[in-house]
Amino acid sequence: MSASRRLQIPQIDGQRLWESLSRLGEVGAYRDERTGLVGVNRLALTDADAQGRRIVKRWFEEAGLAVRVDRIGNVYGRRKGRRDLPPVMSGSHIDSVPTAGRFDGCLGVLGALECVRTLDERGVATDHPLEIAFFTDEEGCRFGTDMLGSAVAVGRIPIEQAYGLRDKQGLVMRDELARIGFLGAHPERLEPPRAYVECHIEQGPILRAADVDLGVVTGVQAISWQEVTIVGRSAHAGTTPMELRRDAGLAAARLNLRMHEMALSGRYGELRATMGGIDPAPGLVNIVPGRVRCTVDLRNPDDAQMAAAERDLAAYLGALAAEWGVQVEARQTAKTPRIRFSDEVQAVIARAIEAAGLSQQRIVSGAGHDAQELASLCPTAMIFVPGEHDGISHNPREYSTPEQCERGVNALLATLIELAA
Amino acid sequence: MSASRRLQIPQIDGQRLWESLSRLGEVGAYRDERTGLVGVNRLALTDADAQGRRIVKRWFEEAGLAVRVDRIGNVYGRRKGRRDLPPVMSGSHIDSVPTAGRFDGCLGVLGALECVRTLDERGVATDHPLEIAFFTDEEGCRFGTDMLGSAVAVGRIPIEQAYGLRDKQGLVMRDELARIGFLGAHPERLEPPRAYVECHIEQGPILRAADVDLGVVTGVQAISWQEVTIVGRSAHAGTTPMELRRDAGLAAARLNLRMHEMALSGRYGELRATMGGIDPAPGLVNIVPGRVRCTVDLRNPDDAQMAAAERDLAAYLGALAAEWGVQVEARQTAKTPRIRFSDEVQAVIARAIEAAGLSQQRIVSGAGHDAQELASLCPTAMIFVPGEHDGISHNPREYSTPEQCERGVNALLATLIELAA
Repeated sequence: MSASRRLQIPQIDGQRLWESLSRLGEVGAYRDERTGLVGVNRLALTDADAQGRRIVKRWFEEAGLAVRVDRIGNVYGRRKGRRDLPPVMSGSHIDSVPTAGRFDGCLGVLGALECVRTLDERGVATDHPLEIAFFTDEEGCRFGTDMLGSAVAVGRIPIEQAYGLRDKQGLVMRDELARIGFLGAHPERLEPPRAYVECHIEQGPILRAADVDLGVVTGVQAISWQEVTIVGRSAHAGTTPMELRRDAGLAAARLNLRMHEMALSGRYGELRATMGGIDPAPGLVNIVPGRVRCTVDLRNPDDAQMAAAERDLAAYLGALAAEWGVQVEARQTAKTPRIRFSDEVQAVIARAIEAAGLSQQRIVSGAGHDAQELASLCPTAMIFVPGEHDGISHNPREYSTPEQCERGVNALLATLIELAA
Repeated sequence: MSASRRLQIPQIDGQRLWESLSRLGEVGAYRDERTGLVGVNRLALTDADAQGRRIVKRWFEEAGLAVRVDRIGNVYGRRKGRRDLPPVMSGSHIDSVPTAGRFDGCLGVLGALECVRTLDERGVATDHPLEIAFFTDEEGCRFGTDMLGSAVAVGRIPIEQAYGLRDKQGLVMRDELARIGFLGAHPERLEPPRAYVECHIEQGPILRAADVDLGVVTGVQAISWQEVTIVGRSAHAGTTPMELRRDAGLAAARLNLRMHEMALSGRYGELRATMGGIDPAPGLVNIVPGRVRCTVDLRNPDDAQMAAAERDLAAYLGALAAEWGVQVEARQTAKTPRIRFSDEVQAVIARAIEAAGLSQQRIVSGAGHDAQELASLCPTAMIFVPGEHDGISHNPREYSTPEQCERGVNALLATLIELAA
């Protein structure tokens, strides 16, 4: 039965998908001098991001889609349905972290485009329109807030707040959007779609280690970002006795180790904790740092355990200040609760994977995704594709095989057809 | 007896000294937005350093000195002696760390100038010429090597090596020296002077805590600077399980804490250890740092204990690499042994302080100074002036009172007279 059913479902052109990924991966490519690996840097609203945007927008147009750019720079391409119904949506992002691979985000956007191309070739019509999209600044690396474009599209972040964000050089988000030619005229708020489905690399080791073909994503773990500023007293490294120091760098080091201990303790479930940024001032070899700005990234699949970790970390910051004579300020820069995806859409994805004769596993996403924003607007779920090298991501070694990508996008296509039919 | 002897020794004009310090302190002044304090930033070979240099050079000329600029930018002003003998020298530096006060270095240069002005006013001649100097880039903050100008003048560092140093922006030392107009024509190697004496703020709490008027400096503790590069693996902060991480930032935090433990352990005598610079890459909130460059500053008044600390730290770096799956490279960026100053010059200083009816204490310098370079060329010692606020330095709160400064420079004057007479 499954063999006959499989025959009825159109299959994408895996070769064409891979070529699209490779072509887009050349935009913003750089060679890591140390490792010799080729990475991608398309930080949001840079010239490289603009070049990537122009290419993918042109591909949308060449696929016959009605393309619109909204006021936050999200780009949508619509394929007509037989009936005047809300669209079934799919997409992701094409901006990247500065040390990225070729797959994060791009697989979801170019996969959705490949689905449209396949439907057109096979002459398959759907009742609901199909709408594919790439959202602005999903990574949040440049302006400090991730899922920015999709969060504005669903109304979680007011557009004026997004417009006013500044990067480290003080450049304003709206100005940069205008500069690269993607400050569109279309209203940024989305009408609720029929459903949203996103195909994405797992960015972790779980599916590959379990030798499972695809993941059905049940939701996204809670995310909490803080910027912590520690103020001690800068002093001469040669003359200041150890006991008279108020070393802000040492306090940040203690915080980093405490975060690590907390994550390993098991007291907060599956807590992950990372200090990715550390910026000491003045930052010179012979001066005890008087001030450090550092970042805290906490993730937890359980809201209550996240709250406990945040509470205990705040208490630790207070103790750090008291014990080491420093001042500590923490500012929340991002915060999303555990997101639960639609059972209905998960079930459709699961059937699509089963019908293809592939293995599957339910999985919670460790990373934030545009899908979690869309989940507040319509039934939503995601498909995860396994990655090689322990699923490393945000790194030039990020890699999923052509076959892995093809399987994920075939599952996406079958899901879109069932939801839109 | 001491009263009558005191009368014979010319006394400097403390008010004039203070005004010179204040005037020079306005060059490169900035207001710390957070504390409201006014600091000084005259990083070597910047426009601010150039402005300070032009002012002090003019003051040298107005004091009737024969001024010369050498090929490394050191500026010397000579007052004739009655006889054709090697000069007695005094000086220091006027470049600063980016977060400095008004006294570090400047007291030694402007104090020496005040001595010349006083001798001229009183019509005092000396057998030996007097030569006063400010040396290029004592701090080493910009080009990574401290005591640069004096080290070249005594032949410890070849001038071509100094010329080729680059700052973080890649600007070349020699180009910057030419740009600010201080690439002089005079040979950089000094003929051995009769003696060298430098008056400097202590930059530490010892004299003030002991309520002692002045310090006779017996030498400089050993200094060891390293740049440590830790390479782990950058990875996604949300998806990468804690046990699969190779977090270079966390390894740097462990190193920082280990250095602190070593300094507090007592196993290495009076070891001081500082991690002043920490630079993680890519340095973003949601990426586990794949690479960190950090600095190590070790000081020890005992060469054998310094060697033990360096050996144990190197062993720790090896253990860190093995245990946490990171690669660690350490590069020595500066290294000077314990310097012992001349007993003869210390004795002259001690007599001068005693004759003035002031209290004194022998003290080892915690900081590096130009005097340690001159010590390889001629009998050398230093006078330390106590500082307020625990002797904090390299900080806008650095402060010595007008009376403290005047006492130090009067001792300098009496010392120069005895050495040059």
